[in-house]
Amino acid sequence: MSKTTPISEFLSKNRIIVDTYLEKHLPKEKEFAGQLVQSMRYSLFAGGKRIRPAMAMASFNVCGGQGEDIFFATSALEMLHTFSLIHDDLPCMDDDDFRRGKPTNHKKFDEATAVLAGDALCILAFQLLAKTNNAQCIQVMARALGTEGMIGGQMEDIQAEGQKADLKRVQFIHTHKTAALIEASLVIGALLADADDETIAILSAYGQKIGLAFQVVDDILDLEQTTEELGKDAGSDELKNKATYPAVLGMQKSKDCAQELKAQAIQKLEPLSGDTTILKELADFIVNRVN
Amino acid sequence: MSKTTPISEFLSKNRIIVDTYLEKHLPKEKEFAGQLVQSMRYSLFAGGKRIRPAMAMASFNVCGGQGEDIFFATSALEMLHTFSLIHDDLPCMDDDDFRRGKPTNHKKFDEATAVLAGDALCILAFQLLAKTNNAQCIQVMARALGTEGMIGGQMEDIQAEGQKADLKRVQFIHTHKTAALIEASLVIGALLADADDETIAILSAYGQKIGLAFQVVDDILDLEQTTEELGKDAGSDELKNKATYPAVLGMQKSKDCAQELKAQAIQKLEPLSGDTTILKELADFIVNRVN
Repeated sequence: MSKTTPISEFLSKNRIIVDTYLEKHLPKEKEFAGQLVQSMRYSLFAGGKRIRPAMAMASFNVCGGQGEDIFFATSALEMLHTFSLIHDDLPCMDDDDFRRGKPTNHKKFDEATAVLAGDALCILAFQLLAKTNNAQCIQVMARALGTEGMIGGQMEDIQAEGQKADLKRVQFIHTHKTAALIEASLVIGALLADADDETIAILSAYGQKIGLAFQVVDDILDLEQTTEELGKDAGSDELKNKATYPAVLGMQKSKDCAQELKAQAIQKLEPLSGDTTILKELADFIVNRVN
Repeated sequence: MSKTTPISEFLSKNRIIVDTYLEKHLPKEKEFAGQLVQSMRYSLFAGGKRIRPAMAMASFNVCGGQGEDIFFATSALEMLHTFSLIHDDLPCMDDDDFRRGKPTNHKKFDEATAVLAGDALCILAFQLLAKTNNAQCIQVMARALGTEGMIGGQMEDIQAEGQKADLKRVQFIHTHKTAALIEASLVIGALLADADDETIAILSAYGQKIGLAFQVVDDILDLEQTTEELGKDAGSDELKNKATYPAVLGMQKSKDCAQELKAQAIQKLEPLSGDTTILKELADFIVNRVN
């Protein structure tokens, strides 16, 4: 998009700020184990859209948050997302060769380095989050990532490969694998802004809806876009017989579902008193993106 | 050992308590992603000695600690140690088939499950630590685990394979890969007991010495014990041309070094006013163990 819209301006400013803080928080390469930091940097700066930090920031802003602790959280969120991509791409998992138009971490380096780079990003994220002195944030993040969240979803995604999927199973996978971390991004932004429980619940509900929409759209794009447009192997879900929305509901119903989830997400925001423009536009951006 | 000594009694009581809390903190198997929890349990309950929890507990006790928060930390420590073993055993890392006399996690399940079980244990450990509401503990733990600690050491260990090692390199590997988490166990026990900075520094110094001794003894045992005695493939360091103390210093000097480190560790404890019997006996146990 060359036209500057409020959301494209928000996202590009957000990306610059997130990248500045990532740079600041990453360890420097040293005499020993230098390849570890190199490979962490490689995947972190491979051109992500920084959606999860944007979600946390938008939530923080709508709650009137002040101060710099939020930047520990946005750095942590992007590190955690990158950790999940590096491990998901491994040969023993989704076995993907390209990500964001570049060789995946284990292709650029090797499998051992990719496993360790993912581990180190996960650990560094918790180290940064701890700097907020907000133990509740750490608990919310860990719950969204672990057996009850992202890793649980990824396990079921792998187990479901090649098996007949139904809507209940694909919903479990998508809400855990993808929506949980997006929801946590919103909740953590609100927590760091000292929001009240009602506001946190509203942003959490918005996050659940738009997080699920995010993965439904991912499924759709995997089928409709080219490898070049996606920056990763297109059509790979079908090839691997993955449990996806289009596989269970068909393409048109999946598209309707994504739009419906977006509408529900936006509706959830209604009781909020702050300016929700960016959150609404983020919902629109997520559902109408092309990669 | 059939004879009951103070240390064997301490360790066996400690193991029962640690296992009770691990059981309490582990998620239950559910309809989806059940294999994840199964594989976490498999490696957690494969018969470890619970040395790191014992270190934290001994440190907590010598500082006069009170309350139950320490059990979040001891559970977390054992989960983090198990996470590191599962990932280190992977085919792309040390490629080990046996651990504690049983098939390694990826042999019992598969590689994808092993990667995810390690990830989930790491994340759950931070979730438990956050329940102490002690952000400093989380920072200490994360620093001991990440690029400046365990994962950094593991990266250098892999990079050094097959190359000529010198003492500086093997010291980096051992202090990072092994000693950092043992040192953190002692520091966290002291932090949760509200110890003063001087006491924390003493226990940290003891931990550095005995942590390094632990890995030197591991190197020695790998060469001197049988696969049956160790419960894992004996002689594998030499086979993989790993950077070890015996490879750099020879066997006798390595044994002398382990004894010297033990003596130094015990000496560090001198200024403490509490009863240091268990810490001294733990040092002895670590250096004189046979597996």
